[in-house]
Amino acid sequence: MVRHTLEYHKNPHNTVNRYKHQAVYSLTTIHTLINTTPVLHVSFTPSPDDPFPVILPMIGQMGSFDHPSRGVGEVLDCYLHGYVSSRVMNLARRKEGNGKGMPVCIAATKVDGLVLSLTPNSHNYNYRSAVLFGHAQLVSSPEEKLYAMELITNSVVPSRWQHTRVPPNAAELSSTSILRIKIDSGSAKVREGVPLDEKGDMEDEDVLGKVWTGVVPLYEVYGEPVPGPYNRVEKVPEHVEGWREEVNGSIRGYAVEAAGKDAPVKRREVGEED
Amino acid sequence: MVRHTLEYHKNPHNTVNRYKHQAVYSLTTIHTLINTTPVLHVSFTPSPDDPFPVILPMIGQMGSFDHPSRGVGEVLDCYLHGYVSSRVMNLARRKEGNGKGMPVCIAATKVDGLVLSLTPNSHNYNYRSAVLFGHAQLVSSPEEKLYAMELITNSVVPSRWQHTRVPPNAAELSSTSILRIKIDSGSAKVREGVPLDEKGDMEDEDVLGKVWTGVVPLYEVYGEPVPGPYNRVEKVPEHVEGWREEVNGSIRGYAVEAAGKDAPVKRREVGEED
Repeated sequence: MVRHTLEYHKNPHNTVNRYKHQAVYSLTTIHTLINTTPVLHVSFTPSPDDPFPVILPMIGQMGSFDHPSRGVGEVLDCYLHGYVSSRVMNLARRKEGNGKGMPVCIAATKVDGLVLSLTPNSHNYNYRSAVLFGHAQLVSSPEEKLYAMELITNSVVPSRWQHTRVPPNAAELSSTSILRIKIDSGSAKVREGVPLDEKGDMEDEDVLGKVWTGVVPLYEVYGEPVPGPYNRVEKVPEHVEGWREEVNGSIRGYAVEAAGKDAPVKRREVGEED
Repeated sequence: MVRHTLEYHKNPHNTVNRYKHQAVYSLTTIHTLINTTPVLHVSFTPSPDDPFPVILPMIGQMGSFDHPSRGVGEVLDCYLHGYVSSRVMNLARRKEGNGKGMPVCIAATKVDGLVLSLTPNSHNYNYRSAVLFGHAQLVSSPEEKLYAMELITNSVVPSRWQHTRVPPNAAELSSTSILRIKIDSGSAKVREGVPLDEKGDMEDEDVLGKVWTGVVPLYEVYGEPVPGPYNRVEKVPEHVEGWREEVNGSIRGYAVEAAGKDAPVKRREVGEED
């Protein structure tokens, strides 16, 4: 059986022009970054007269209401969660008449390590960043809203939805809005590996003798759970504790592994802005 | 002696309309968030014909070249670091003629904990987020460029600049561009504390007996440094190790402390969009 790897088509919005060798268009990579980043940054333009775009931190997740069994590497929408009367939701509501919806840019970024080299210029981060461009529309069907609410809740802690008081009542459903973003394009950039300096500095005995070079891995830790004031369940449940252990290991593992990989050698490509 | 706390003036761009009790306009809070976030998200509109705003992850820091001794709570510019021929720099260069510069929005967000409550709707994050609106111009004077490069390098690891091969040579200086953003306005939102559910659920014995509630603190850790392939300095230097220990303690300390604070009681305010 042949497995196809889907990629976003390149267009003027998503094409990476700098460090093209670090560019990734694979749906699996981009969607996984969106799904594992606790907070997404969503940008939109409030009105044509307003010079400033706005960035909102939001919680979101890739999914497909029509094809819920689709995997992370398949064509998916991005669902974003927000309050019903917030500015972004009001804007999306007003733009509903336009057909396609409100144009948005969604970014997910992880810093995996500080790359400390011989000179300030060659300092870097190990990082993974993804960006999606698409059109946002408010979800109106209660079934799709419930699908997205469960999807987003379970992205924070897997199976959390099933371990809380559900389903949401009418007031809860009406106070929450969900944006569905149909994705036009996307791209990602990934840097991993050891430091890389210019030849001149790497041959300078004086500099080599003085400057420590290496990577400081950077990773998030989900710490010891702190029970709240009205908690009555003595033991922290397995869906929290088991998950915490697993995710902490994998986040740290990635950062440490990335710190020791070969440096990405920059291949100059035709047409690269350089 | 009276110490004044400076605040950004509220205008239609930066005024927080949702959960106003969590809104902060203090320069100290906003600038500290910008300065301690490893990666900022910067949004701009490539052209008036383009419907999509773009978000770039960038490294930046608050500072003042004219008044370098100013504290974090004073009026400062935001300096952003980038490659000389990248799209954002080209755009800023083209917009230089317009006088004010290119309108940008800069966001810094930290998630400090998962607030796990009785129902999906009352789930939350402990978080701190800041946003700045301003106009970006390319820095042209070599002195200001050097000032900003040192500022930004030392924001990654304090005194790192002084522990590397400096000053940058002509090629390094010319390949780096710095954007200076004059800030128009800014705001922040902060949520900390234990979970808070609706009265009905908190009085439901059945729900209370089944659902664990509390906060899972979330914090970044700067891990064990990994020496690079051409490193010759055996001991990880104190400017890395001493700083790492200190910063790890304070990041974790904040998240754990925030997890145990009283829940923010939502005060309904006049004019709140609700």
